[in-house]
Amino acid sequence: MTPPDVIRCAYAELVVTDLEASRWFYTELLGLVVTAEDEDALYLRAFEEYLHHSLVLRKGSTPALARLAYRVRSPEEVDRAEAYYRGLGVRVERVPAGTTRGIGEAVRIEDPLGFPVEFFYDATHVERFTQRYDLHGAGAISRLDHFNVVVPDVPAAQHYYEGLGFKVSEDIEDTDGTVYAAWMYRKSTVHDIALTGGDGPRLHHIAFATHERSQILHLCDHLGAVRRSDQIERGPGRHGVSNAFYLYLRDPDGHRIEIYTHDYYTGDPDNPTITWDVHDNQRRDWWGNPVVPSWYAEASPVLTLDGEVRDVRERTEARESDVTIGADGFSYTRTDEGERGFKVGHQV
Amino acid sequence: MTPPDVIRCAYAELVVTDLEASRWFYTELLGLVVTAEDEDALYLRAFEEYLHHSLVLRKGSTPALARLAYRVRSPEEVDRAEAYYRGLGVRVERVPAGTTRGIGEAVRIEDPLGFPVEFFYDATHVERFTQRYDLHGAGAISRLDHFNVVVPDVPAAQHYYEGLGFKVSEDIEDTDGTVYAAWMYRKSTVHDIALTGGDGPRLHHIAFATHERSQILHLCDHLGAVRRSDQIERGPGRHGVSNAFYLYLRDPDGHRIEIYTHDYYTGDPDNPTITWDVHDNQRRDWWGNPVVPSWYAEASPVLTLDGEVRDVRERTEARESDVTIGADGFSYTRTDEGERGFKVGHQV
Amino acid sequence: MTPPDVIRCAYAELVVTDLEASRWFYTELLGLVVTAEDEDALYLRAFEEYLHHSLVLRKGSTPALARLAYRVRSPEEVDRAEAYYRGLGVRVERVPAGTTRGIGEAVRIEDPLGFPVEFFYDATHVERFTQRYDLHGAGAISRLDHFNVVVPDVPAAQHYYEGLGFKVSEDIEDTDGTVYAAWMYRKSTVHDIALTGGDGPRLHHIAFATHERSQILHLCDHLGAVRRSDQIERGPGRHGVSNAFYLYLRDPDGHRIEIYTHDYYTGDPDNPTITWDVHDNQRRDWWGNPVVPSWYAEASPVLTLDGEVRDVRERTEARESDVTIGADGFSYTRTDEGERGFKVGHQV
Amino acid sequence: MTPPDVIRCAYAELVVTDLEASRWFYTELLGLVVTAEDEDALYLRAFEEYLHHSLVLRKGSTPALARLAYRVRSPEEVDRAEAYYRGLGVRVERVPAGTTRGIGEAVRIEDPLGFPVEFFYDATHVERFTQRYDLHGAGAISRLDHFNVVVPDVPAAQHYYEGLGFKVSEDIEDTDGTVYAAWMYRKSTVHDIALTGGDGPRLHHIAFATHERSQILHLCDHLGAVRRSDQIERGPGRHGVSNAFYLYLRDPDGHRIEIYTHDYYTGDPDNPTITWDVHDNQRRDWWGNPVVPSWYAEASPVLTLDGEVRDVRERTEARESDVTIGADGFSYTRTDEGERGFKVGHQV
Repeated sequence: MTPPDVIRCAYAELVVTDLEASRWFYTELLGLVVTAEDEDALYLRAFEEYLHHSLVLRKGSTPALARLAYRVRSPEEVDRAEAYYRGLGVRVERVPAGTTRGIGEAVRIEDPLGFPVEFFYDATHVERFTQRYDLHGAGAISRLDHFNVVVPDVPAAQHYYEGLGFKVSEDIEDTDGTVYAAWMYRKSTVHDIALTGGDGPRLHHIAFATHERSQILHLCDHLGAVRRSDQIERGPGRHGVSNAFYLYLRDPDGHRIEIYTHDYYTGDPDNPTITWDVHDNQRRDWWGNPVVPSWYAEASPVLTLDGEVRDVRERTEARESDVTIGADGFSYTRTDEGERGFKVGHQV
Repeated sequence: MTPPDVIRCAYAELVVTDLEASRWFYTELLGLVVTAEDEDALYLRAFEEYLHHSLVLRKGSTPALARLAYRVRSPEEVDRAEAYYRGLGVRVERVPAGTTRGIGEAVRIEDPLGFPVEFFYDATHVERFTQRYDLHGAGAISRLDHFNVVVPDVPAAQHYYEGLGFKVSEDIEDTDGTVYAAWMYRKSTVHDIALTGGDGPRLHHIAFATHERSQILHLCDHLGAVRRSDQIERGPGRHGVSNAFYLYLRDPDGHRIEIYTHDYYTGDPDNPTITWDVHDNQRRDWWGNPVVPSWYAEASPVLTLDGEVRDVRERTEARESDVTIGADGFSYTRTDEGERGFKVGHQV
Repeated sequence: MTPPDVIRCAYAELVVTDLEASRWFYTELLGLVVTAEDEDALYLRAFEEYLHHSLVLRKGSTPALARLAYRVRSPEEVDRAEAYYRGLGVRVERVPAGTTRGIGEAVRIEDPLGFPVEFFYDATHVERFTQRYDLHGAGAISRLDHFNVVVPDVPAAQHYYEGLGFKVSEDIEDTDGTVYAAWMYRKSTVHDIALTGGDGPRLHHIAFATHERSQILHLCDHLGAVRRSDQIERGPGRHGVSNAFYLYLRDPDGHRIEIYTHDYYTGDPDNPTITWDVHDNQRRDWWGNPVVPSWYAEASPVLTLDGEVRDVRERTEARESDVTIGADGFSYTRTDEGERGFKVGHQV
Repeated sequence: MTPPDVIRCAYAELVVTDLEASRWFYTELLGLVVTAEDEDALYLRAFEEYLHHSLVLRKGSTPALARLAYRVRSPEEVDRAEAYYRGLGVRVERVPAGTTRGIGEAVRIEDPLGFPVEFFYDATHVERFTQRYDLHGAGAISRLDHFNVVVPDVPAAQHYYEGLGFKVSEDIEDTDGTVYAAWMYRKSTVHDIALTGGDGPRLHHIAFATHERSQILHLCDHLGAVRRSDQIERGPGRHGVSNAFYLYLRDPDGHRIEIYTHDYYTGDPDNPTITWDVHDNQRRDWWGNPVVPSWYAEASPVLTLDGEVRDVRERTEARESDVTIGADGFSYTRTDEGERGFKVGHQV
């Protein structure tokens, strides 16, 4: 069974409870462009995007992830997606063009991990605001970068995504072989999807890319200025994994949004996978700053294709937060291995 | 005769012919804050300023400099300014508080160089928007930095300003002793006033400071986006003199505005003066990029205290543009002097 | 005839006349990492690269381009390249692994445009210095970005590269249909190869990417500090085409090196092509700063596979420098078309 | 009794136990320039400084502060310092030129707060490396900015420093009038000395200034790369007080070093004092990131003029760490006061 040829993560649809509060966060703070709006939804894109939207905010009673959407390489690949998922035996729906405003004919599925996922090719083109610097604020965002989802069994989820043609750029393991997280990509960045071990299916976050770090720092300054600094959950910092400069915010409904820059090119077929030790204190933050507990514990529920909140299955393997937080000395900054006192995976 | 104790350059008043065109340039592009406005004037300040304004734009028929204003250390120093200039025999006027909106009692003079200058202490305090990052655009400006005036005789002008207690941080000379420009300060930056040799009195430019270079680069991007890139006259670049990162813009009336960052502390009494050779190709641009002819040739006329355009006196000494532009090989990038092949003044 | 599946531009080999002078430029100034060196060659890579090199400097008597190398997706694609070019009837050579140090078995050709080009898959992996911030200077470079070549007939060259599977991201035309330059890509950036109209075949430049603009600005400051600012040929600036922030340097032999950041994602199959009018004064520099004549006129000769300097054929169509430089008013900053007074190609 | 005319904080002398470990930290990581070295001491300066040093590291058995030094305006002010402190009845010593290498005749005292302090005017001038960009790394530091000392009684210490002519730019208080910290200046920045309430006399930190935030971020990246991220104690972040972007490092002996940029001009006589509520969660970090306990608790001991470690007196008033850390809900991000929900002192 041939999987559809996925280009990249393309858009997410989030259910929010207060569209005006969300509008402030996504358009005033983050500066996303409103391509269109309905009575109950906002369709947003970043400055370098020419498809109709990379984020839909839809008003609803419970904050949740309604849909992750991947773009495939052609209309035929939408058909292939339908066949592929019917072959997998999961729930599959074909929806006509316009079911989501701006998006063409699509296939929606509940994937084997429990997530509502859409595959599409056709979408309305709109003006790319790459050079509309008159509209770019100090925190200008360029494009959607990736999704991050919480799954109980990371190797199983990785196996599923490998079936879809994704490859692993980096992961976090322990020496017993437990995998805590994996980063997987189709486009030539570090990831389109990250798999984070935990109770799932849940959405951990969606991430947008900027060009420079100053744009991320401004978002913090801006939140301070309007006295919403408590929406800064973690960072800014430099990731060990991916080397990206990052910031995690929580939107008015608690959905986690990452702003992200500086990762690296992964487009060659032999791109080395970097494996990090879960006890390496610089894996999540290169500067060793601690990960706040909420970042490990909290995530957004996901909906079925019928819009029902999906039940969550507990992770049974060790949790990263348990093995790395506390007074038990599990984390290290330096080891005795090697000249520089540490290793960073099997790179070569 | 004791001169008044000048703290710093404080504000300029420019005559502009189209207040709405100027409003776009100064508030939409540069992002200056409107403290107040009248039918015929805008009172503007930068984000870290708490006095009423650092720039006044007043509608008039001829673009010109109406006034340069220095702040003195106390109300008594305003009296001292009056006495000092009466002693110098120049025209002096005492004006009551509010003559310029937001400014207290002041003394206005026509200085010996022909410029309309004001000395004041009292001014209305307004909110300092240092941390109003919700209002800061990508090109946010912090404060007024300096004035730059064109005078025919730089040593004479330097002598006058030394009498006022200013000191020279850097200058440009040739080996025959001709002085082409001098930078002088009261506050502990490279300058409050620069003296540029040429036909004068004219205003060469006023300069505002940002925190970082990215803010200056954004102004260029913004002008490109609105198809007004022809308002970029020179730069961005790195000055040799002052080491500042710079950009020169022309406002809708042709007034030249510099945006400036990265100069250095000069507050110690033995701050070394740096003398640059006029034939050193990196003195005006550390990267050796050429100075455009308009930058040397053009400047704003200045008004008398009666609002008449003042006549200009020609420079009789060599002009910097003549000795450094052309195919005559006057400029050098490297010399044979010293280990690193060049000297940068008498620093130690 | 199926072309080989090219991943991206991968390395260039330049002939330089003074290896020590070049070493300073490429390793001290640009900070490239020396993977290996022979008596007559340096093998260099940027900080995020894990293949053996992205630049070879080989000592020789005449500065020239010895080879442009593309990486293909697998060893089988090297065979496919051989067959493809034999089918095209150009000169083809199969070379064993190690013919270029660090590179596996390869096919070398003289392409239909007259350039010496190599296709390879296998290469020695070395440590990726992405996070070796202890080695990153203030001007740290991440990776090779693209090649830019001078060809007399841009549409013919574009046709050839389309045959190889490249797509056009942007180009410069006039209203009569003359094409002055085209940007073409395989990896999801604006280009792997740019085609610049002029006397060719010649190498216009090779370009390396940084993460941020500050790294590019530092290179200028550094050149100023060592009094080699005359090696700055053009920039820094913001390109209209590609939106990249750029700087053009000349190495000690006159080879042109661009340092480049901030371009955009092109990986979707319907990525819009942007067509710029050759008379648009912001096409080459978004800020309207002029292109220096040498940038249009000068380029490096290229070698045959035997190491002979190849003859150059004159461009017969109009030259960009002729139609856009001079007092004839050909360039525009604003037009009367459209609401914002200008158009930027057919984006949607 | 007239106090000496202090220009600014000028240098600190720290006792370190391992000169080679310190050399790495201060010269390899921070990039300070070695002006001179003895068998037992390093004399360091930042890139824009022309006096002999702004930091002395002297080998000794116990990490401690040996001396804080202020520069006064003239040699006569050194005499005035001697008279002033004799009048205050504290221990005073006159030391000849060269007692500290590079420093002229000086007066050393044990100030009323218990700190070893020197006043000097004369000092050896050395080359200012402002434009030696060939030597500037990615984390280049411009100059010493301020000292921060721990004192049990902040109002008493403030009173002492007001006697010396310092003014308060900002402070932290509670509504009962307890003062937790105060920032005081002579030069026109936010501070030359900060007074932090706690057991003292101890040295909280010394701070150096950079031009931009990227230079501070690089220091974190660099420490990560050499696996010394545990030397990052707090930050990077944006201060509420001072608005500066900051980072706190601990040197190999535990001395705390701040790297700091983006504060504001305070040189006008009516510079508004900003008072922060100790319960304002953004006062110490504008982004609301928590202050780590060690930052409140730990500081360097100080020596007497005889080199003995001075006893510490306990703070008897409430401690900032007690009233703001914990589950008691003392801190706020938003209040109900005013339109934007908060106040930032009495600024106007």
